[in-house]
Amino acid sequence: MPTITRDQVRVPLDVAPDMRETYVDNFMKATRGTGRLMLFACDQKFEHLNGDFYGEGIDPADNDPEHLFRIADQGVCGVMAAQRGLVALYGADYPQVNYLVKMNSKTNLVGTAQEDPYSGLLCDLDHVLAMRDNGVNIVGLGYTVYLGSEYESTMISEAGELIARAHAEGLIVVLWIYPRGKAVTAEKDPALIAGAAGAALCLGADFVKVNPPKPTEGTSAEALAVASQAAGRCGLVCAGGSTVDAATFLTQLHDQIHVGGACGNATGRNIHQRSLDEAVRLTKAISAITLADADVERALAVFNGDEDFSL
Amino acid sequence: MPTITRDQVRVPLDVAPDMRETYVDNFMKATRGTGRLMLFACDQKFEHLNGDFYGEGIDPADNDPEHLFRIADQGVCGVMAAQRGLVALYGADYPQVNYLVKMNSKTNLVGTAQEDPYSGLLCDLDHVLAMRDNGVNIVGLGYTVYLGSEYESTMISEAGELIARAHAEGLIVVLWIYPRGKAVTAEKDPALIAGAAGAALCLGADFVKVNPPKPTEGTSAEALAVASQAAGRCGLVCAGGSTVDAATFLTQLHDQIHVGGACGNATGRNIHQRSLDEAVRLTKAISAITLADADVERALAVFNGDEDFSL
Amino acid sequence: MPTITRDQVRVPLDVAPDMRETYVDNFMKATRGTGRLMLFACDQKFEHLNGDFYGEGIDPADNDPEHLFRIADQGVCGVMAAQRGLVALYGADYPQVNYLVKMNSKTNLVGTAQEDPYSGLLCDLDHVLAMRDNGVNIVGLGYTVYLGSEYESTMISEAGELIARAHAEGLIVVLWIYPRGKAVTAEKDPALIAGAAGAALCLGADFVKVNPPKPTEGTSAEALAVASQAAGRCGLVCAGGSTVDAATFLTQLHDQIHVGGACGNATGRNIHQRSLDEAVRLTKAISAITLADADVERALAVFNGDEDFSL
Amino acid sequence: MPTITRDQVRVPLDVAPDMRETYVDNFMKATRGTGRLMLFACDQKFEHLNGDFYGEGIDPADNDPEHLFRIADQGVCGVMAAQRGLVALYGADYPQVNYLVKMNSKTNLVGTAQEDPYSGLLCDLDHVLAMRDNGVNIVGLGYTVYLGSEYESTMISEAGELIARAHAEGLIVVLWIYPRGKAVTAEKDPALIAGAAGAALCLGADFVKVNPPKPTEGTSAEALAVASQAAGRCGLVCAGGSTVDAATFLTQLHDQIHVGGACGNATGRNIHQRSLDEAVRLTKAISAITLADADVERALAVFNGDEDFSL
Amino acid sequence: MPTITRDQVRVPLDVAPDMRETYVDNFMKATRGTGRLMLFACDQKFEHLNGDFYGEGIDPADNDPEHLFRIADQGVCGVMAAQRGLVALYGADYPQVNYLVKMNSKTNLVGTAQEDPYSGLLCDLDHVLAMRDNGVNIVGLGYTVYLGSEYESTMISEAGELIARAHAEGLIVVLWIYPRGKAVTAEKDPALIAGAAGAALCLGADFVKVNPPKPTEGTSAEALAVASQAAGRCGLVCAGGSTVDAATFLTQLHDQIHVGGACGNATGRNIHQRSLDEAVRLTKAISAITLADADVERALAVFNGDEDFSL
Repeated sequence: MPTITRDQVRVPLDVAPDMRETYVDNFMKATRGTGRLMLFACDQKFEHLNGDFYGEGIDPADNDPEHLFRIADQGVCGVMAAQRGLVALYGADYPQVNYLVKMNSKTNLVGTAQEDPYSGLLCDLDHVLAMRDNGVNIVGLGYTVYLGSEYESTMISEAGELIARAHAEGLIVVLWIYPRGKAVTAEKDPALIAGAAGAALCLGADFVKVNPPKPTEGTSAEALAVASQAAGRCGLVCAGGSTVDAATFLTQLHDQIHVGGACGNATGRNIHQRSLDEAVRLTKAISAITLADADVERALAVFNGDEDFSL
Repeated sequence: MPTITRDQVRVPLDVAPDMRETYVDNFMKATRGTGRLMLFACDQKFEHLNGDFYGEGIDPADNDPEHLFRIADQGVCGVMAAQRGLVALYGADYPQVNYLVKMNSKTNLVGTAQEDPYSGLLCDLDHVLAMRDNGVNIVGLGYTVYLGSEYESTMISEAGELIARAHAEGLIVVLWIYPRGKAVTAEKDPALIAGAAGAALCLGADFVKVNPPKPTEGTSAEALAVASQAAGRCGLVCAGGSTVDAATFLTQLHDQIHVGGACGNATGRNIHQRSLDEAVRLTKAISAITLADADVERALAVFNGDEDFSL
Repeated sequence: MPTITRDQVRVPLDVAPDMRETYVDNFMKATRGTGRLMLFACDQKFEHLNGDFYGEGIDPADNDPEHLFRIADQGVCGVMAAQRGLVALYGADYPQVNYLVKMNSKTNLVGTAQEDPYSGLLCDLDHVLAMRDNGVNIVGLGYTVYLGSEYESTMISEAGELIARAHAEGLIVVLWIYPRGKAVTAEKDPALIAGAAGAALCLGADFVKVNPPKPTEGTSAEALAVASQAAGRCGLVCAGGSTVDAATFLTQLHDQIHVGGACGNATGRNIHQRSLDEAVRLTKAISAITLADADVERALAVFNGDEDFSL
Repeated sequence: MPTITRDQVRVPLDVAPDMRETYVDNFMKATRGTGRLMLFACDQKFEHLNGDFYGEGIDPADNDPEHLFRIADQGVCGVMAAQRGLVALYGADYPQVNYLVKMNSKTNLVGTAQEDPYSGLLCDLDHVLAMRDNGVNIVGLGYTVYLGSEYESTMISEAGELIARAHAEGLIVVLWIYPRGKAVTAEKDPALIAGAAGAALCLGADFVKVNPPKPTEGTSAEALAVASQAAGRCGLVCAGGSTVDAATFLTQLHDQIHVGGACGNATGRNIHQRSLDEAVRLTKAISAITLADADVERALAVFNGDEDFSL
Repeated sequence: MPTITRDQVRVPLDVAPDMRETYVDNFMKATRGTGRLMLFACDQKFEHLNGDFYGEGIDPADNDPEHLFRIADQGVCGVMAAQRGLVALYGADYPQVNYLVKMNSKTNLVGTAQEDPYSGLLCDLDHVLAMRDNGVNIVGLGYTVYLGSEYESTMISEAGELIARAHAEGLIVVLWIYPRGKAVTAEKDPALIAGAAGAALCLGADFVKVNPPKPTEGTSAEALAVASQAAGRCGLVCAGGSTVDAATFLTQLHDQIHVGGACGNATGRNIHQRSLDEAVRLTKAISAITLADADVERALAVFNGDEDFSL
């Protein structure tokens, strides 16, 4: 099991001297003391509107936003990524969850053919820091950058500024980086994914969330290994994508970590579109792999309820 | 009658600790102690220019802006939503009205075919807070977001920032969310309305005003029930739309609340285009349903003057 | 003669408590104690470049910018509206004039067919306040909004912010509101003029300057009466337009006030394109109507020099 | 010789009370105690890139930027106009030169056919003030406005703000105003030049630099007289244009002042494209006309080295 | 060997008086006491994404970002130019390297045919200063300007502001200036390169990095001599370009300095695409020429390991 000690946490040089311990606290909380990140992605309530939460194949429980908090609370996750408003309105009832505030968002209404994507900041960081200082368990921030968009410069400026300010305050930052825009013809090209990972490093992110590469030859996990190395000290985690069956999903995840060098996962729909009980078990199965180096067989046993998993 | 106690008010986590009582005060005032919102919409003086206030089928009294204040003063409303300037110029004579300052507006001159909609902030929040601190009875703010507009990112940034700042100061916030723009082909699609409601929640709004959905099958109120659930802890209220006869209007409102799960209403033209006496009676009929769970029959009796209603 | 007492001045609620007396001072100065506004418009030095000041049919004296100050000084006006720079460079020699600083301007070089109009702020309000605090007799501000322009949102944001800040400091504000842009097909449509007047009220302006409506039936003054009522507590004044003979001009003005419900006038070219002596007499004739309820006959006597007028 | 006393300097009302003496100092320095301005324009190092400084017909000395400082130091000028960077890097070796910091610039690479001109600010005024406060002999600022450009509003906002701030700090301001953009068909139309001059006055500039008008009838100097009058208390100076022979140049200059009412000149290429010795003599010849009311004959004698000129 | 003393360092006038010694320290560090700059360019991790770091002809070591730091640490460089994030995440392990923080960047995804280039600021300077003040060995800043882009005005504004602020704090600044955009047909035209160099001077940069000119007649180094002179007191350094064999590369560099008047070099790919050992030797060979006036033969001996080089 990949545990790390507080001494092993590399504190970036932009963390203010008196916030180094806070940064280590947050890093240890977010990674549950492992250095690896299990991110439960709940920001799609805004990004995908209600299409991911209601309809055929989706458990009816998912239409109630509190479903997300119940999963985070009862399951095993590193962080729950959600917009500030969600945390403000539900967080008082779920104080133990590690919150990663997703700082920007866009809906899926305007397509790339109409306009290149830009994801707008939902509020100034000051307000998030105020909530943290008032006792809300916020350990970090998230921000999405669309590299290759005509609005790339705005997003990298906001991301870079956010990271500098967040680090100064002892928070960790995860960048969602997706190449997208009229200039991008193959969003999952391995070289592009590796470039995106490196760009996150240059911006100073602690973790970068990318889509799994689609190579023309070799496996996705092999291609991911190049990106993971290119990310250097910025830990790479893979987006989970749309809902697939648990066995396939957990096998992919295992490969991403053990072949692809990923240091975690970022999963949303695959978890919350299920009933509460099943969703909770899936978070445990994922965490068994990500945080405890379980093999796929054991993870499936956890998912099937034949075995429990906790940290 | 759906009364709530001060203890039952859920105070968002972004309300500053020393402003929690203020927030509860404002929430109780705005909902008249019921948790439900009866919003008298007077912002269309700007949005629709004079077309909603003068002309055929509109009582001549409506051309004088003071008509709006007289209705709010003599009728039964939760809040009167109006631009800051209106409150500044008339509020001294109507100090008991609960004001909800509508922070942004646009006229209807430039159509969506020419340019996607953006509604500009009319002043910084500081000026509204200064008025409040000088004794004006301002309980909250309103802001319009056009999801799906090419200016969506600007509006969600302004809305999110406004909510964070308003909550910190103990004010409540109502978002008007309308999907609109070249990318939006069906503004009242039920899934879109539900998405809009959820987006308001992600931004941290206390209430969201949406248009009633137009489903291809089932009733509007049934479709609304999905949106109300998707809004979670953000109370959903329906826009009243253009003037219809009182019986139809009150029946729709009753269904929105008791079938659709709405927690209030937002009505403008239907009220102010009538004579003062009739408008006052309509506010009471609406409030009888929204704030006191009256049935349609009793509400009509109130509207017809056969019965009075007060809180 | 429509005199008012200091007690009758309605102080807007956004005037800071310790600036209420200053606001009343400025309102009384600007309206010469009548509640009506005689505005001498000198901002077209920028708006129309030199075309209004030099050429056929224009008195040669008008090419020297000091001509404007001499008229304001020797004639009878409520306020002289001019850009900050003009006040800064000439004001020391004309300290008794009531200055209304026109805060934004644009030239007439780029037409609406090329680009929708936007009139840019010429400096921050702080600089105007500094001049006022150093003793310059600045009683208020002016700002132009082109409703229906694609830049409407920027202008209403700047106007709303300016009004809030100006009121807080005890200054009055006059908005010039003109519907203009590719979306506006009939700039002087009565409903549009009434809407513009109401929009100024929503922004909190003390006075709104509009163009006289051109109705398809009835007189302009009758149509103006609807707009004046729609403006509510925001006093409506009419733009003077291009130079016409004095009798026609004064008759129109009398109708605007006594039929159209206007509470003043805003006149530029009609005054300054004349010789100093004639221009001075015209300001007195206008003020006789606007500020002293003179009839047209008496005003013409003043213009012709058969009678003097002073306050 | 047009000398003025300190008492005769008209201090604008936006000069802070405790900066009035500083303003008078700077005005007297810039005009060498005459009220007239001899401006040595060195900002084209950026505006025209290296084309004005190297090539056929240009003295090789001109390729070294220090050439400009040597001329300013050894010749007779009122001010040397240059970007802040030039002053920062050479000013320590030429401490006696009166510097006028050109605050904005653009290169000539993008033509008007591609995009209307905008000249961007090169830094905040604070940095220039800091240099001044640390002892650099900065007496004023320059800023270019392209009236009629689609970016006119941005430039007039920046210019107006700059003037207000500069005056408050006791600095003088020269505006370069050129009508330019797709909407401008005749940049040197006399009415347009006069309008530009008046616009500078409305913005509050101390001096305005315009191109000499090209009238369809009458001389350029005669047309200039209208513009000079329209500029009022804002002193008008003419741009020197491309290099012509000294006799022609000095005759034009004499006419601009004595027929056209100009109160100075702004000359660049005509000076610096010559050898140091010749350039120095030309500054003296120009200054003889501008600052000492010399006739052309005497100025030519100075240029030819037959007579010296100093103040 | 071109050594300079601290007294010979020309401190720009925008360096704050109490930061003059800091500026001299940084200038001496960056130039290793020679006045010449050997800049190891590591910003292309973002600019070129992963294409410069992984693939055919590139040593596999280059895919790990730490490779860059190992080279800077073990080789001989003046400064290592890299984005703030890279310095924050690796700098603690390489504290002796002189860091030049590259303040803006763009990816190569959107081509000039689609949109003119703009390179966005990655964070506010405050954050870089905070790192410096906390002990990170940051000696200066870098910023890229695309002259001739439709976004030129934004970049020159940001560059000018950055230089003013950086100098005030005692940091040196290197500008990367590339003419690029739809208006630029020949990016390496000698007159354009010379103009770019002069523009950097006008902005106040300490050094300017340009591409080697491509003249239609004469050598590139001869054309460079004009640009070096036009840059005046702003030291000109040439970009290294894509990887070529060491002999060619070192010969070009020698010519740039001794014929072209360059005062240094800026090299990236040519160094880091090699194995660590070879890359380290190349930095020494380059520095032998740049910092110690070695001839090509000696530099090649250093590169081949036949001779060592240190300062």
